[in-house]
Parts: sequence; structure tokens; C-alpha cells
Amino acid sequence: MRRDGLRTALATVCLSGTLEDKLTAAADAGFDGVEIFEPDLVAAPLSPGDVRVRCADLGLSIDLYQPFRDLDSTDPDRFAANLRRAERKFDVMAELGADTVLVCSSVSPDAVTDDDRLAEQLATLADGAARRGVRIAYEALAWGAHVNTYEHSWDVVARADHPALGLCLDSFHILSRGSDPAPIADIPGEKLFFLQLADAPHLSMDVLQWSRHHRLFPGQGAFDLPAFLRPVLAAGYAGPLSLEVFNDVFRQADPVPTAVDARRSLLALAEATARAEAATAGAVAEAPADGAAAAEAPADGAAVAGAVGAGRRAAPATVAIDPVNAPAPPLAGHAFVEITAEPHAAGQVGAALSALGFVRTGRHRTKPVERWEQGRARVLVNARGNDGAALGALAVESADPPAAARRAQRLLAPLLPRERGPAEADLAAVAAPDGTPLFFCRTGAGGPGGWSTDFVPTREAPRAGIGITGIDHVGLSEPFDHFDEAALFYRSVLGLTPVSAGEFAAPFGLVRGRALTDEARTVRVALTVARLRRGDWAPAVADPQYVAFATDDVLAAARAARDAGAPLLAIPDNYYDDLGARLELPPERLAAYRDLGVLHTVDHPDGGVYLQVGTELLGGRLFLLLVQRVDGYDGYGWADAPVRMAAHRRNRLVRTTL
Amino acid sequence: MRRDGLRTALATVCLSGTLEDKLTAAADAGFDGVEIFEPDLVAAPLSPGDVRVRCADLGLSIDLYQPFRDLDSTDPDRFAANLRRAERKFDVMAELGADTVLVCSSVSPDAVTDDDRLAEQLATLADGAARRGVRIAYEALAWGAHVNTYEHSWDVVARADHPALGLCLDSFHILSRGSDPAPIADIPGEKLFFLQLADAPHLSMDVLQWSRHHRLFPGQGAFDLPAFLRPVLAAGYAGPLSLEVFNDVFRQADPVPTAVDARRSLLALAEATARAEAATAGAVAEAPADGAAAAEAPADGAAVAGAVGAGRRAAPATVAIDPVNAPAPPLAGHAFVEITAEPHAAGQVGAALSALGFVRTGRHRTKPVERWEQGRARVLVNARGNDGAALGALAVESADPPAAARRAQRLLAPLLPRERGPAEADLAAVAAPDGTPLFFCRTGAGGPGGWSTDFVPTREAPRAGIGITGIDHVGLSEPFDHFDEAALFYRSVLGLTPVSAGEFAAPFGLVRGRALTDEARTVRVALTVARLRRGDWAPAVADPQYVAFATDDVLAAARAARDAGAPLLAIPDNYYDDLGARLELPPERLAAYRDLGVLHTVDHPDGGVYLQVGTELLGGRLFLLLVQRVDGYDGYGWADAPVRMAAHRRNRLVRTTL
Repeated sequence: MRRDGLRTALATVCLSGTLEDKLTAAADAGFDGVEIFEPDLVAAPLSPGDVRVRCADLGLSIDLYQPFRDLDSTDPDRFAANLRRAERKFDVMAELGADTVLVCSSVSPDAVTDDDRLAEQLATLADGAARRGVRIAYEALAWGAHVNTYEHSWDVVARADHPALGLCLDSFHILSRGSDPAPIADIPGEKLFFLQLADAPHLSMDVLQWSRHHRLFPGQGAFDLPAFLRPVLAAGYAGPLSLEVFNDVFRQADPVPTAVDARRSLLALAEATARAEAATAGAVAEAPADGAAAAEAPADGAAVAGAVGAGRRAAPATVAIDPVNAPAPPLAGHAFVEITAEPHAAGQVGAALSALGFVRTGRHRTKPVERWEQGRARVLVNARGNDGAALGALAVESADPPAAARRAQRLLAPLLPRERGPAEADLAAVAAPDGTPLFFCRTGAGGPGGWSTDFVPTREAPRAGIGITGIDHVGLSEPFDHFDEAALFYRSVLGLTPVSAGEFAAPFGLVRGRALTDEARTVRVALTVARLRRGDWAPAVADPQYVAFATDDVLAAARAARDAGAPLLAIPDNYYDDLGARLELPPERLAAYRDLGVLHTVDHPDGGVYLQVGTELLGGRLFLLLVQRVDGYDGYGWADAPVRMAAHRRNRLVRTTL
Repeated sequence: MRRDGLRTALATVCLSGTLEDKLTAAADAGFDGVEIFEPDLVAAPLSPGDVRVRCADLGLSIDLYQPFRDLDSTDPDRFAANLRRAERKFDVMAELGADTVLVCSSVSPDAVTDDDRLAEQLATLADGAARRGVRIAYEALAWGAHVNTYEHSWDVVARADHPALGLCLDSFHILSRGSDPAPIADIPGEKLFFLQLADAPHLSMDVLQWSRHHRLFPGQGAFDLPAFLRPVLAAGYAGPLSLEVFNDVFRQADPVPTAVDARRSLLALAEATARAEAATAGAVAEAPADGAAAAEAPADGAAVAGAVGAGRRAAPATVAIDPVNAPAPPLAGHAFVEITAEPHAAGQVGAALSALGFVRTGRHRTKPVERWEQGRARVLVNARGNDGAALGALAVESADPPAAARRAQRLLAPLLPRERGPAEADLAAVAAPDGTPLFFCRTGAGGPGGWSTDFVPTREAPRAGIGITGIDHVGLSEPFDHFDEAALFYRSVLGLTPVSAGEFAAPFGLVRGRALTDEARTVRVALTVARLRRGDWAPAVADPQYVAFATDDVLAAARAARDAGAPLLAIPDNYYDDLGARLELPPERLAAYRDLGVLHTVDHPDGGVYLQVGTELLGGRLFLLLVQRVDGYDGYGWADAPVRMAAHRRNRLVRTTL
């Protein structure tokens, strides 16, 4: 951004690799600055002066040096030694050109517990810092021995009342303790020296372990970060929005996409905060003028026009949002899914679609792609794949495809170059984190987003179908390193809401699932990932993708499909014996389930029943699913996914040589 | 075992795969029986009758069907429905031929909290079970809504006083709560229907999550399982020793080695329990006769001769140990390590050894293997490798090599076939879990374990060396799926004790470490593993192996090595600036460290200092290390391992094209 709004920064500890790897990745992703995590510098061959030059070359400022631990001490000799240690770090900072250092509250048994004495020790440190042109940002660790809340850290900083001493606020330390962030708005903005942002899932574990291993980028976890950011901005904070995320997966993943994911999280957070701000704007008397001005500015960043440098509470801080980055245009369902398959597998997929009641309604003008339709379900089968069958592309119905694509790019989704003939529709596609193209469409329309005109009608006879009404959802198995990234991508780029998160024990290891949908439930995406990577021994079948078709009568649909020769997946009798023991279903219903291979799942906290019938695997790791949602069921049937996965494994053992 | 001692069993939930995969793996590892975990059966295409036949074919008994959840209810209709559900499960058990079912204490909000009423409901269930020839083993889950201690479960079972109702004891549920297992000895043995064993690391987290994801096989975690098992056997428990281990890694790893690891854990536990028993035997008046008899029996299993079928407390149960499975013969250091390298890398290794003051003292009679020596450090360089350089074999000095090898085989270590010439020594080697050969030797001796005679002396001139006195330890980077297995292997087969466990944030992700040693610290093995698997982007250099040589003066040794041209690893200046700030070392000492690349580590809770100087990587992923332990330092310098890893990464970037 590096524009009028707040700046974005990234702590080097967020990324994997050496310091050199990290700086390059942060710069490439567009960050304005970095926090230098001390262990990264200590292990680097670059001198602090070299790092300063490297950062300058990359256009990165060094916004924070961190962390300095266990400053205060009840032992005067220890405290004196700690001050000498700090002086050495001020030397390093001078070479780096960094003017703010993070000092954590002590976790040591000799931590000072008298607040006046603590304030005095911090002021002594701040004196030394001021002589070197350095500022101390004091942070309460959630597990600090004495100081472990932001209120307490603010009390100590206020007592010390030293111009070179201020606060560092970290959303994890504050929200993990359940502290209310609202009173932050009452802290003078000029005493907020630094802001570190991190999200996290709700976990019932030791807070230190939770912090060190499970932090996430904003929007990937369970914390309400807009509600945290608003009082910070309202207080007049004018420093960077900086990410400090300790995460085991990110720590071992390619830093380049992780840095993009990180920056996307801040862009999305800025937008969400602005929207929350806007929603309450009517209630804020002073806001409109500034907000409106910012909204009209031609800025092309996801600008967070905070009250930069404003005096305390002169006006409530406003997070402005520029017009291009307005909310995602409304969605109206899945436009189509494309299945890419090598020719033989494409034949298998076509035969299965036909048996499921689909009609081949069109052939692409220039490519080996067929269009199949039933109800509002549309499937393109692209015979240009070269390895089995896979989901080749997703497409959503958007109220404004060009705006949606621009917004996606603003959220750092790469625009995909498309090869198209002169008469073909100009469809904008961006790449999801796993590389899958995502199209923004307006089915049936001409102009941007119109795609149907690329197909020559086949004039095949219309059929009644088997009762499929549309695409219920797509099931994507994500690469291990990109699961949280994918969830944030669909959340931010499509404006979806995470609705389900879960974990289940599948035959080849634990699988984590997360699903996202729009408010009207017209677009649903279900993501899964193996919690650990697959062992060498686990078959590829452990990670299938699928397309789920909606029906209002899964029994009738499955029966019709089977009669037409659909390769329905056989489910073991044991499952039905257990189902009968658990639920005491009417015998004829249970018999019909058993006959057709229907899974009957009741795993959603809000109730309802999920009925699903799958096909065998087509081309190795793709299957089709018929689903019926009964009584408002809003989940994805994960409780029965292990049964389906075992059946697919058997299916594959029978049909192929593994 | 299926001999006179207690039998061994494995819950299918311990392993990855389908039910068919699991049964085969359990049988291959030599288990006598299995617990059938219900979700495994539900997802299986085999009918319960088929499973019965399959198990019989494999020589497995079905010792338990599990689990039946949430039986009791304050709602009479619900309780009636639960009884009907149980009847369906009794049907399944009849087909399976299983006579014991595990019933967990309820976690439901409608759990009965009146103990008399609860006992009554359990007795009602037991009535139904008795009619079907089934026994109910009631278990207190550590997170049960009302019943969550074994004492409470026993109280309820005693109140019910029903012959078909007894207890299931699970070491995890009992030890995770910190309960004292000793009073178990007072429970009548005939009421202990089943015993489930699991170990676990100490973790500060929700007990349900701890249980579901982090259990380990006995000997891999932190629980004192011999102290748990002894009162159970003393009570007269005569059922199988059965493992129920929910572990995320095992759940996705090849079930065949995991099952071997599992059975090894029971053999080692039986031995450890017997040893604990023997240690206190003098204090037990009735024991000697039985114990001595068992010790002379020619049993070839790691026999646990419990008081099988004995009436309650007729005599204290004795865990007998047969002579072959006596404690590991004492160790007296590393005999040698073998480095296997392709010819060019072997040259690099030889040059480095020479610069480190080693003398090439011998050449193998028939193989391209050279022997290098200095002090008691012996290194074989085998030029028959085909990919860089790696640790090819470990060898320990054993007081009785043949006994040690027999013992290793009894602990399921595969004996390695060896190709050897007619005049060559007959050295017994077994394979560690990662395939590395492990030799039992008697250096300098003839006969079994004598290996020196295989080498023709070179008659190269003796040299003073650089002060290396021996091998301090070997550093092994383990495959992700086999880390806990490797730790248990070295612990049980070599009789080592785990002394250090830790985790550190390395440049390419978190690394977990565990070290094992004998009491006298003559043999040390340090194991590391990447906590998550490496991303595609992390370099091979992230997982190096090494040999650490001991010296009493690392500065002198490093200086001499450098003067001789050893490729010492350069450590960044930043490290020394930080070290100076942290420790205020004398300037000349710091300067010497900086000059030579010495890492100075003070991370062990018992104190002391670890000084280490590494070489660059030799042949890609192996390096040599000089270490000096000051003031009794007993760790492995993990706090500075990330600095070394970053330096190796740089070293490799400079020297090769990645």
C-alpha cells in the first residue's frame, strides 16, 4: 500500500527460510515493512548494516526489532546486566536503522512485582533508549509472570510516563485471554507504539503453546479482529498493521505464497474493519466528512485511511475503503464446474453424467470441451487433461463479473492468462492457491461473464433428468501447506463466510475440513486437508475431489441413476446395521438406503439430516455425489466421510492394481 | 507370545488403513488378539462373521469389541433405546465371536448422577449381556460427565455386583488424571475384565484432545507404565495386555512397522515390569519360588508369567523374565561409526578426517572400506555408497555381543544378513527402524564381536591427533513416521535411557529432538525429526546427520583442525555479538569463538556449557562435529542448532547449485 492509509508490515518469524529468503518474500508480496525477529538476524551472515541496505533495496522499512526479554529484575546486578544487554541491542538497531524495540513483560522468576519499581526500571531503560534515538514498545505477554494483560502494561507505562516508552499491543495476547479490546480506544494514540496482529483458532490448551504453534493470519481463525482493530484505530494508532504469526505449517512452507497469503489477510481485514465502521457510521456524528472524502479518493490500494498522526481522539478514526474494493458483488450460485480428464477418463465422466440424468447440451467452438446440464447444474468436461480426472475450474454466478475479477486481483489473486479464440467470451479467471482457475460468470448473458455462447448446441433431446436441481457444493482437497491460505482466499475473494470446521478420523489419517458459503447458500465450497501429510503408504484415493449435486429426493434420484447404469458406490452392510442400531429408522427406509448406498448423516449442531450417494471414483481421484439436505441441514456429512473413503479405497483395490 | 504368560492384543484404532490392512499387520507382528474398534468394522465390507473367519485364519482372537457409549440416561425412554442399541451390538458380537464389550462412562448431559441408579442401569445391561454370553467391561473416561476416575467406576461396578459386569482399566485415563494406580491391587482380579495400555507425553492441554491425538505406545512417553502394570497384575488380572493408542502419526503411517513397534513396546514393558518386580522381590515374602521357576523356564517369548487365572491375592503376581531376555548386556562406548559415501564424497570425508587428526589405520580385506582412528574414536569410510555421504552403520561395544543380538531379535529387530568373506568376523547386525545397521562389537577381541581383524593395517605413521578422545554421540535425523518408533527401538534394544527431549524452531520448520544414553554416558544417540514434513521448498540440508567427536579442549582441537585444512563451518558475526550481549564472556574468549566458529550453548536445565564446532556438509547431508562438555553439560546444544542449520544452508548455497 505505502499510500495514505496505514502501512503493512510482517514479522520475519511468520515465514520459513533464512532472513534473506524472508525479506525477499515480504517485499515481493508488497509489504511496506518488516519486524526483524532477533533469532533470524543472529543466524544471518548479513551484518545489521547489510540488512539495512538489503531492506532499502527491497523497499522495506524496518519497523520493529524484537523481542527483548526479561528486562526487569528484583536483583540489581541482574537488572544492570540486562541494561548492558539492551545497550548492545541498541547498537544493533543503530546499524539496522530500526528505531523501535519490542520489550516483553518478564516471564522470569525474578520479575519485578512492584508496579512502581517496574515502571522505574522501564523508565531507566527508556532513558538509555532515548539517548540512542530508540523507542521502547512494552508488551504484556499473555503468560507474563506479573504483567500479562494490556491493561496492566498500560498502567505501568502510564506510571513511567516517559516519552520513549509506549505500548505494543498484540491481538493474540489480548484476545486469547478473553480481554475486552474496547477500552483500548481510551489509550492516547501517541502511546501506542506498535500493533501486532494475529488470529487463532479456539483451542483448549496452554496459552504459550497455542501462541507459539497455532497462530493464523487474520480471517483464518476464530478471533474478531475487526472488533479489535477498531478501538486501536479509534485511539489514534498511526503505525503499521503488522503481522506476528507463529504457525508450524507456515514455518515450513514456501515463504513466497505464505507472504502473499499474509498480505491478503491484512487487505481483507482492512476491508472488514471498514465495513464494520461503515455499518455503525450513522451513529458516529463526526465521521461522515472524512469517510466520504476517502471513499472518493482514487487510491488503488485496499486503503485503510486511519487518523494518521492525528492527536488523541481529535476525531474518531475512520477506516476508508475505496470503491473498487467494495464488498464482493453478490453471488447467485455455481455457474459451472469444469472437470479436466484425459480422454478415456473423460469418457467415464461423460457416461456417469449421462446416467445421472445430465444432457450434453453443447460442444465448445474450439476446444475438446463438452457442456452437460440438468436443472441449474452445469458441468464442463474438458478432455485435454493428462492424468486421470480432476476438478479443472470453478465458476460462480456473479452480479458483476468485471468488478469481481478486479476485486480478486486487488486481493492478490493472480489473473490467469486465457487462450481464447476471436469469437469467444472474455471470461476473467483468477487462480486459487492450489492453482485451480476461478471464473466470474453471468450464465445466459452476453458481454462480460457470458460464457454460454462459446458452446455450439448439440440439439440432443431434452430428458427429464433424475431430479438434480443444481450444484450443492464442490469438495476440494487442498495441499497440506495451503489449507488456511485457501480458506482465506475463498472467504475474501468470493466474500464467503466460514460455516463449518471439523476434523475426522479417516482410514488413512486425520482429515481437517472447513466449508464456506454465501449468506443465501447459493455457493458452497468444502475444503479438506490431511492433518499430517500422507505417509508413503497411503493411496492417492485418500484425497479425492468431488462435485455434489443437489436433489430434493435422493432415493428417487439414486434409483433412477442406478437404473441408467451409474457406477454408484457400494456401502457395507455393517454401516446400515449400525445406522439401524443408532437411529431406529423405519425398516423400509433402511432397506432402501442399504439397497442404494445412501449415507444418512446427523452430525450438524443445528440439526437436520444429510443424505448422500456417491459414485465410484472416476479417473482415479474424482467422484460425483448426490445430496439431499433435510430439515435445513447445513453441514457436509463429515461424520460419514470415513465410511465413504474406505469404500472408495476398496472400489479402487477391486478395479485397479494399486 | 501365546505362551504361558499374559497375551498381547492391539486395538485396531492404533493402526492406519482399512480393517483388513490392520488385522494383517497385527497378526504379522505377532499379536495374539485384537480389539475391534467399531468404526473400523462399520466401514468394512467384511461381515462380522467374515471378520471372525479372517481373524481365526490369522491366529488372532477378538478380545474386545469397543466402544459402546452413553448407555445410562436419566430419561427412561432414552435408556430403553440404548438397551435396544446394545442388543444390536450383542448380535454383532455373537457373529464376531467376541465376548467382551467396552462400555465407556457417559459424556452425555443426561448421564445418571445417582450412583445407585447408575449401578442399576449397568446391571440391567449386564443381565441382557449375560443372556447372550457377553461380559460388560465398564471404563471411566477421564472426561466422563459423572464417572471419570477408576475408583468411581469400581465403586459403581461393586454396587451393581453382577457377574457379567466388570472393569476396563485404561492407563491413559488413569495416569492422565494423576491418579495413584497402587490401590488397583485391592480390586478383585476377576472383576478386572480388560486392560488397555497407552503411554503419552506430558502435555498441558485438554485431556480429550491429549487422549485422541497424542497417545503413544508404552516406553515412548512420560508415564510410568511398569508402576501402573504391577498393581494390575498383583490384583490377579489375567486378560491380555492390550494397546489402545490414538496417535495422529501412527494413524497415517504404514501399519506394518507400526504394529511391530507396538508389539515391541509390550515386550519391553513386560521386561521393565519384571525388572521392577525383581528389584523389590526381596521384600515380597511369597515370591521367590515362582519367580525362580519361571526364570529357568525355556520360554522364548518375553514372557510375563502373571498369576493367570489365580484367585484374588492368592500370591502376589510375578512377572517372570526368561534368561535370554535379561537386561541388555552393558555397553562400553561406540565401537565405530560407518560412513557410506560415493567415491568422490568418500574422498571428501577422508580428507576431513585427516584434517581432524585421524589416522587411516586399516583397509578392509575385501571391501572398499577404510578404518580411521583417533583416541577411541573409530570411523569406517565405505566408498560403496551411491548418493553423497550418510551414516551407514552404528556399532556399540557390548559386554556380550551374541546375547545382545539375540535380545535385539527378541525385541523384533530384524537380523541383517551379512555378506562376508570366509576369514572375516561374524558380526551380528540388526536393522534400526530407518534401516541403519546396528552392530554389537568387542573391539580388539577375537571371536564374536571382534571386528578389527577384518582390517589390514596400513602402517601409516601415528600422529598426535588434535585431541579427539572418542565418539561423543551420533546425530540421526529420522523419517517423520518413525520417530517415536526409533526412540523406543534404541531404548529397548540397547537398554538406553531417554535423557533429553526438546523442540526448536529451525530455519525450515520446527524440529523435535530426543536423546538416549546409557547410565555411564558411554553411548549417546540424538534423534531429530521435522515436526511436520518438509515442504516442497525446504532443502535436503534441513535434515543432516552427523558424528560428534569428544574433546577436552575444543578451541585447541578446532585450531589444529583448521590449520590442517579442515572445512570448518563459518558462523555469522551476529551470533557472537548476541552471545557477548547475553553472557558477557571475556573478550579474548569471544574472539577465539568468533575466529573458529565455536557455538557456546547453555540450554540444559542441569547447567554446564556445550561447545561445538562443525564442519561444512560433506557429500550433501552429513557433517562432523567437535564437542566439549564443560561442567557436566548433558544436552545436545539444540538451542544453537538453528544457527548451525542456517550456516549449513548458506554453505550449501555457496558450494552447490540447489
